[in-house]
Amino acid sequence: MKPVAVREIERAQQAVIDSLAEQGVATVHEAQGRFGLLQPYMRPIYPGARIAGSALTVLAHPGDNWMLHVAIELARPGDILVVGLSAQNSDGMFGDLLATSAKAHGIAGLVIDAGVRDTAHLTAMTFPVWSKVISAKGTVKATPGCVNKPVVCAGCLVNPGDVVVADDDGVCIVPRETAAQALKLSQARTENEKKTRARLAAGELSLDIFEMREKLAEAGLRYE
Amino acid sequence: MKPVAVREIERAQQAVIDSLAEQGVATVHEAQGRFGLLQPYMRPIYPGARIAGSALTVLAHPGDNWMLHVAIELARPGDILVVGLSAQNSDGMFGDLLATSAKAHGIAGLVIDAGVRDTAHLTAMTFPVWSKVISAKGTVKATPGCVNKPVVCAGCLVNPGDVVVADDDGVCIVPRETAAQALKLSQARTENEKKTRARLAAGELSLDIFEMREKLAEAGLRYE
Amino acid sequence: MKPVAVREIERAQQAVIDSLAEQGVATVHEAQGRFGLLQPYMRPIYPGARIAGSALTVLAHPGDNWMLHVAIELARPGDILVVGLSAQNSDGMFGDLLATSAKAHGIAGLVIDAGVRDTAHLTAMTFPVWSKVISAKGTVKATPGCVNKPVVCAGCLVNPGDVVVADDDGVCIVPRETAAQALKLSQARTENEKKTRARLAAGELSLDIFEMREKLAEAGLRYE
Amino acid sequence: MKPVAVREIERAQQAVIDSLAEQGVATVHEAQGRFGLLQPYMRPIYPGARIAGSALTVLAHPGDNWMLHVAIELARPGDILVVGLSAQNSDGMFGDLLATSAKAHGIAGLVIDAGVRDTAHLTAMTFPVWSKVISAKGTVKATPGCVNKPVVCAGCLVNPGDVVVADDDGVCIVPRETAAQALKLSQARTENEKKTRARLAAGELSLDIFEMREKLAEAGLRYE
Amino acid sequence: MKPVAVREIERAQQAVIDSLAEQGVATVHEAQGRFGLLQPYMRPIYPGARIAGSALTVLAHPGDNWMLHVAIELARPGDILVVGLSAQNSDGMFGDLLATSAKAHGIAGLVIDAGVRDTAHLTAMTFPVWSKVISAKGTVKATPGCVNKPVVCAGCLVNPGDVVVADDDGVCIVPRETAAQALKLSQARTENEKKTRARLAAGELSLDIFEMREKLAEAGLRYE
Amino acid sequence: MKPVAVREIERAQQAVIDSLAEQGVATVHEAQGRFGLLQPYMRPIYPGARIAGSALTVLAHPGDNWMLHVAIELARPGDILVVGLSAQNSDGMFGDLLATSAKAHGIAGLVIDAGVRDTAHLTAMTFPVWSKVISAKGTVKATPGCVNKPVVCAGCLVNPGDVVVADDDGVCIVPRETAAQALKLSQARTENEKKTRARLAAGELSLDIFEMREKLAEAGLRYE
Repeated sequence: MKPVAVREIERAQQAVIDSLAEQGVATVHEAQGRFGLLQPYMRPIYPGARIAGSALTVLAHPGDNWMLHVAIELARPGDILVVGLSAQNSDGMFGDLLATSAKAHGIAGLVIDAGVRDTAHLTAMTFPVWSKVISAKGTVKATPGCVNKPVVCAGCLVNPGDVVVADDDGVCIVPRETAAQALKLSQARTENEKKTRARLAAGELSLDIFEMREKLAEAGLRYE
Repeated sequence: MKPVAVREIERAQQAVIDSLAEQGVATVHEAQGRFGLLQPYMRPIYPGARIAGSALTVLAHPGDNWMLHVAIELARPGDILVVGLSAQNSDGMFGDLLATSAKAHGIAGLVIDAGVRDTAHLTAMTFPVWSKVISAKGTVKATPGCVNKPVVCAGCLVNPGDVVVADDDGVCIVPRETAAQALKLSQARTENEKKTRARLAAGELSLDIFEMREKLAEAGLRYE
Repeated sequence: MKPVAVREIERAQQAVIDSLAEQGVATVHEAQGRFGLLQPYMRPIYPGARIAGSALTVLAHPGDNWMLHVAIELARPGDILVVGLSAQNSDGMFGDLLATSAKAHGIAGLVIDAGVRDTAHLTAMTFPVWSKVISAKGTVKATPGCVNKPVVCAGCLVNPGDVVVADDDGVCIVPRETAAQALKLSQARTENEKKTRARLAAGELSLDIFEMREKLAEAGLRYE
Repeated sequence: MKPVAVREIERAQQAVIDSLAEQGVATVHEAQGRFGLLQPYMRPIYPGARIAGSALTVLAHPGDNWMLHVAIELARPGDILVVGLSAQNSDGMFGDLLATSAKAHGIAGLVIDAGVRDTAHLTAMTFPVWSKVISAKGTVKATPGCVNKPVVCAGCLVNPGDVVVADDDGVCIVPRETAAQALKLSQARTENEKKTRARLAAGELSLDIFEMREKLAEAGLRYE
Repeated sequence: MKPVAVREIERAQQAVIDSLAEQGVATVHEAQGRFGLLQPYMRPIYPGARIAGSALTVLAHPGDNWMLHVAIELARPGDILVVGLSAQNSDGMFGDLLATSAKAHGIAGLVIDAGVRDTAHLTAMTFPVWSKVISAKGTVKATPGCVNKPVVCAGCLVNPGDVVVADDDGVCIVPRETAAQALKLSQARTENEKKTRARLAAGELSLDIFEMREKLAEAGLRYE
Repeated sequence: MKPVAVREIERAQQAVIDSLAEQGVATVHEAQGRFGLLQPYMRPIYPGARIAGSALTVLAHPGDNWMLHVAIELARPGDILVVGLSAQNSDGMFGDLLATSAKAHGIAGLVIDAGVRDTAHLTAMTFPVWSKVISAKGTVKATPGCVNKPVVCAGCLVNPGDVVVADDDGVCIVPRETAAQALKLSQARTENEKKTRARLAAGELSLDIFEMREKLAEAGLRYE
């Protein structure tokens, strides 16, 4: 794969992206048929962050954060950096300097299948990061990779411009082309769940609300 | 194993259960001879929770949370759901809807050898969960398992009605039959430690308090 | 290896140690040429701690915390306990009693390649610990090891008296002999980064500040 | 849990046990409803072993193989040692001396949720072992555990006298009470598969043999 | 993602594929710029297999091998099944029946980011498999996935018709469009290495052959 | 740490080294008091190798095998390359070219806390390797490290000239200064075990040979 940085990518509508953030990872993932979830080893560096944005994809090499510098110039406000690696790596490829620069250019957060450092600083400046590991191990700038080419990040294919939704439950990727539909399905789901939640809070049983008793009996469950 | 849900189980005395919560996992585990500790990969979704309750055991299949719905109906206030899996799984089998229902029925918390989701929501409603992983991956309702049958959870056998003690240190299972005795031993231990703690805080050395110097010398330790 | 406890060790200058704490793990590790970082599985039990101190090294056996008792007597205020194990172990070798004693003798914190327990208590008393795991599993006092002999902890050789720097990013070991120089390099680095940070915050690109564009082109990166 | 060694246990019929060995792990596990499989980290130390026997259960403590010595006296020819641990451990608790003794008493093999050593020797004497890890780390004889009490081994509850089936695919536990039925179901399954295998080998498709085409279409699969 | 099975895909030239097998994983991976390697947890079930073929891609759900049945019908002789999962899974999704069918249809091997079973049987019939784990845990046929759509397998994107090269070192994916060029570069590399190997075998040092001495000195290496 | 290569190191006597190989890892590790064992994730690439040699230590950087080239020149026949890394790494840092060169210079084998490749080739030429992983991922030659300086390899400190003993059970390091004594203790142990083995093979119980019955009763074991 030749080192390439693509300047222009298509993005989903900002209103759709913002609404997907409100829906959250669990709902969106469920709504789009349980696809697009990054592996659960991707954890936020501090609790409570809840964002969505367009994927500014980066393919980096182990121990080398050069392409992150390239990526920042190509960002639009609200983008989320999504970094895949060409081989397993746990080095701390991103720290407070890159975060300062990223924030200055309006980048909303980072999703990286490797390590991150200066986490106390990043937390203080509320720059949200989802990473595989926290590590102070720094990196070199020796081998170019790609920006805005499709990457595999934590087991999931991410195309540039896909919508990244991230919160305390993890990270979910919504394909740009189906983002509006995923939002619609998420909202319908949320609406439905609101009603169900009220009934459950009042003490009704899901066994009754969803009429599971007969199906359970058919499936062989017996009570003693 | 045939799918069965047992309606009635025996529980330990509520006073014993409540007092075990106060003692905490480390003390209780130590007091009952270092048995009953779930593997340390079981972590709380937020810090500070400290509970005890009767185990409402659930045997579930990977990616299938059907039996959790069955279990909630059979709960008594104060019970703790303990979910073992028939094979390794990291899906998010429990979220805010189930938590709402569980809370409405007085369930005190969840211990699950799999994943959990909607963790921000669960944290906000202070429903404590100890799990292997956090994952937004949802589940189906296809294959029945068991409720209130013995299960293996995170490497430990749990019988229905056993006392579950859980805090920031992890999860410990106290057999129902020996719960009163475990409490007694825990309280004695706590009492003892109180005195020791005061002496240590005053600067005395454990080498002297516990007369270790001679034993260390006998065991071959020499100072340089 | 014969069980030995060494009473006197050399330490770095207190002023150097204190200043290294201010620099933090990521900067110090970088400044000394990316050596001395413990493996990233070593995590703090609560966020926000940021310390440095002289390594009081302990070689312990799995499931046996006897030498920790020996070590406390040999501590000077400000020392950090660094515990290596003779084989992999995840038992909770350190809890609130040892922490009480350690604090009474001025020990600044613990770095242990095994488990720790009573974490709620340790957090409340703000005794910082970096460990491999949290586990309530207690230990025996049966086999002596060593105090103040070189140990391997989480993949890194630690000599007694080396400076331990620890914060939310992990743990870094600075050899005693080169501590002053590591500090100097760290401070220079910090000074430099301050300027860079201001320029980045103002929107300048690292591509321009560090003149990377030509090098990237030479390395084959092309824009589309 | 008090240290106890139970002398007499019930076993399944030898003919049933021997036939279960012929069926193999995958078939038996499937036949009894996909229960009883030890976690897949349990691997044989050499390929090709294929055994079944009655579980002689041992509860041991980390780094302590004392109860293995106790267990050998209580073995009947054909028994398989099944060792669960009271906490995670990777020490090499079993080597050529214990294997020599075990073989002299007719023990058919070992299943241990910890380490094993002298593997070249054990392979040469064809004493089959399924373990979590291979490690030369030796053990002490300090704390008694149990023999022929129920144990959890690699995530699965094993009662003394249960039938252990082990081959290159792993280890499966068949409850003693249902062993004859599990065999019958296994044999039926094997018989069925023989016919299916012949048809598949001749080029027929499982899509046709099992009439899956319509179900796939109903489930939404479409061809392009 | 909607369940789809694509009947026709493009493949690389058979001569190119066969030659890539001869080159082996390490050479091909190196030759195409160190891209396309599956994560190293993918291991062969027996040593010595060395194959290449066109990727017949399968997207399957955890615990569900339905799409493998669909895939076999769409195979051409020489194809290699490449199975990605929609979530982490370690079940044994492929066994001797599927292998019998796959072999009858000329399929050359299997690469699966999950488990495999009947490994003794598969070894005996020399059907090569690279998998994440060996597990007897069987699967259901409940949810359709995709065949011949792009999948992520063990961290790598695989497009249908890409060339899969697999041997004892692991698995490498060569994009179909660049397969001929990758072969050419591999052959050049092999040719070069042949000469180097002869010189090294004769005792010459790589330091001299590749003129590293000066570069090492420049980089700061000094001899003592 | 400055990049340095030390030309001359002291080695243990060849006769001692050769005899340690005969004793094997488990015996030597036990004989020297259970110290010096590398973590059990270090596995041989093929079964049956059993070697000992003087450690030619290498400190390398992740993804960079430059220092291995430097090391080969400094080897004496019979040396074993022991490679520690400055950070976690799973790249394949050693393959058939380096093995050819190493063999030409009499190097007896490789112990590497990272990956290895061309394993089929290395197996065919019977060049034994113990590694953390097998990976085809190649490396660069960019950053110098050290040769013949102390390194940490798989959790164990290795000094240049220490004796490395490696077989199917793993790898054990014997300090050069105590190698003769470790051999003596190993031989005594082997002699003792020979007698014990004969008695055990004849059916005697270790309970009787080592007079454990009384100690077990004292420790609280009771028979039922």
